[in-house]
Amino acid sequence: MEKPIRFGVSLPKDLLVKFDKLIREKNYPNRSKAIGDLIRQELVKKEWFTGKEVAGAITIIYDHHKGELLDKLTDIQHRFKKIIISTQHIHLDEDNCLEIIAARGKPEEIKKLADTLRAIKGVKHGALSMSSTGKEIE
Amino acid sequence: MEKPIRFGVSLPKDLLVKFDKLIREKNYPNRSKAIGDLIRQELVKKEWFTGKEVAGAITIIYDHHKGELLDKLTDIQHRFKKIIISTQHIHLDEDNCLEIIAARGKPEEIKKLADTLRAIKGVKHGALSMSSTGKEIE
Amino acid sequence: MEKPIRFGVSLPKDLLVKFDKLIREKNYPNRSKAIGDLIRQELVKKEWFTGKEVAGAITIIYDHHKGELLDKLTDIQHRFKKIIISTQHIHLDEDNCLEIIAARGKPEEIKKLADTLRAIKGVKHGALSMSSTGKEIE
Amino acid sequence: MEKPIRFGVSLPKDLLVKFDKLIREKNYPNRSKAIGDLIRQELVKKEWFTGKEVAGAITIIYDHHKGELLDKLTDIQHRFKKIIISTQHIHLDEDNCLEIIAARGKPEEIKKLADTLRAIKGVKHGALSMSSTGKEIE
Repeated sequence: MEKPIRFGVSLPKDLLVKFDKLIREKNYPNRSKAIGDLIRQELVKKEWFTGKEVAGAITIIYDHHKGELLDKLTDIQHRFKKIIISTQHIHLDEDNCLEIIAARGKPEEIKKLADTLRAIKGVKHGALSMSSTGKEIE
Repeated sequence: MEKPIRFGVSLPKDLLVKFDKLIREKNYPNRSKAIGDLIRQELVKKEWFTGKEVAGAITIIYDHHKGELLDKLTDIQHRFKKIIISTQHIHLDEDNCLEIIAARGKPEEIKKLADTLRAIKGVKHGALSMSSTGKEIE
Repeated sequence: MEKPIRFGVSLPKDLLVKFDKLIREKNYPNRSKAIGDLIRQELVKKEWFTGKEVAGAITIIYDHHKGELLDKLTDIQHRFKKIIISTQHIHLDEDNCLEIIAARGKPEEIKKLADTLRAIKGVKHGALSMSSTGKEIE
Repeated sequence: MEKPIRFGVSLPKDLLVKFDKLIREKNYPNRSKAIGDLIRQELVKKEWFTGKEVAGAITIIYDHHKGELLDKLTDIQHRFKKIIISTQHIHLDEDNCLEIIAARGKPEEIKKLADTLRAIKGVKHGALSMSSTGKEIE
């Protein structure tokens, strides 16, 4: 693990007071961690935009009673197995399932998988969480 | 399962042609599924805004070598156990872990959990996927 | 003006009830207008993503007392004059100005202009509103 | 104008290298300005969320040929005159108009105005740019 670098930042006093209040509300241990996170957020956005290898989670909600839905979901996940890492399945109630698919690959492939899952009859909602492999955001 | 209701929609021809192209690209089986999804998306946004019970996934990336990180993550997850359904852990490489936490509860509680996890030293990125319990989006 | 096309859409009853409630809250005259808007929203997102000619508004907030800020803003706006349509300037209070720049061109040029304005010392906030030339969303 | 405060920030070297690259691409003069902007962005999001007085721009695209559209737009703008500062109108082509409305007030009022404008028959797209009065983000 590399040693961190220390540098000076200059901000208007009022802004700093409000920043300190914000990071206290969010339970941050110090300004450096909070500033690092703001920077990493921007870098992760850029990873998704420039087509770097990324990681993400696709969250879908579906009614498992819908005809052949489970077969279709399994078929598609096999078709995309190169980018799917693992799947977590939760029974929300009698009808509704929450499935969270961890994926890793090119942004456009992960988006394609999210679109394909969302388009299946019986899938009510699909959301894509854009994260990172962590390698490029030390 | 209730019977669907059929109704007429009137759209400019050019718009319909572009919509048909868009839903073909996204593998939708038909217009009704695609229109239903657009509507459900809006309703899920509203659920998160109005404080209804929702479900979601929090995705965090961290370096497990950082001191006491695992202990802190476990502590926090226990503290929020009322809203956490389950956790999926993935080893991305030697250093980086991807952890996906499925949660269910009030939007502000889930956001609070996401903020608290993100603020821990060693957590590099946190993303929140806003989904639904599925009950209100038939 | 072309004649609209009428087609049938099939949705679960509960979803339709919630949709009708939502569009009443938003003052929509009928379902067709609301569904058309959801579709146009998706098409505008796609225009920005695929690099079509788009229109947009860049909103910046700045303190006009900051040294040479006005000169710099004017310089930059002249440099980007090919994509800037017009500028609206509002005096928010003694110190703060709100400037809204209407632009038209390639998405990456408009984003570049927004980034360049936001980076100037004295500019406190910049926001980019992604809209359309209207030609492709009849 | 108050004097800025200088403080130390500690970041991993790799992260700092990537941050410096990012801010060079965005034409930032120095790290302090870039970090200040990231913080102000978060504060503006919070202003919109907590219902503080904010400023913003509503961008609408419409076909001015549509029956009584101009009358309706004018009526609505008068109804909301308490929060509208000024309006900029641009003729995009024979049919399409771009109108940018600068507004100032409570977030929910500005959103209500945006919803109401978007719902009018003939308005093809509406976007809301969330900005600030500048007072709280020194």
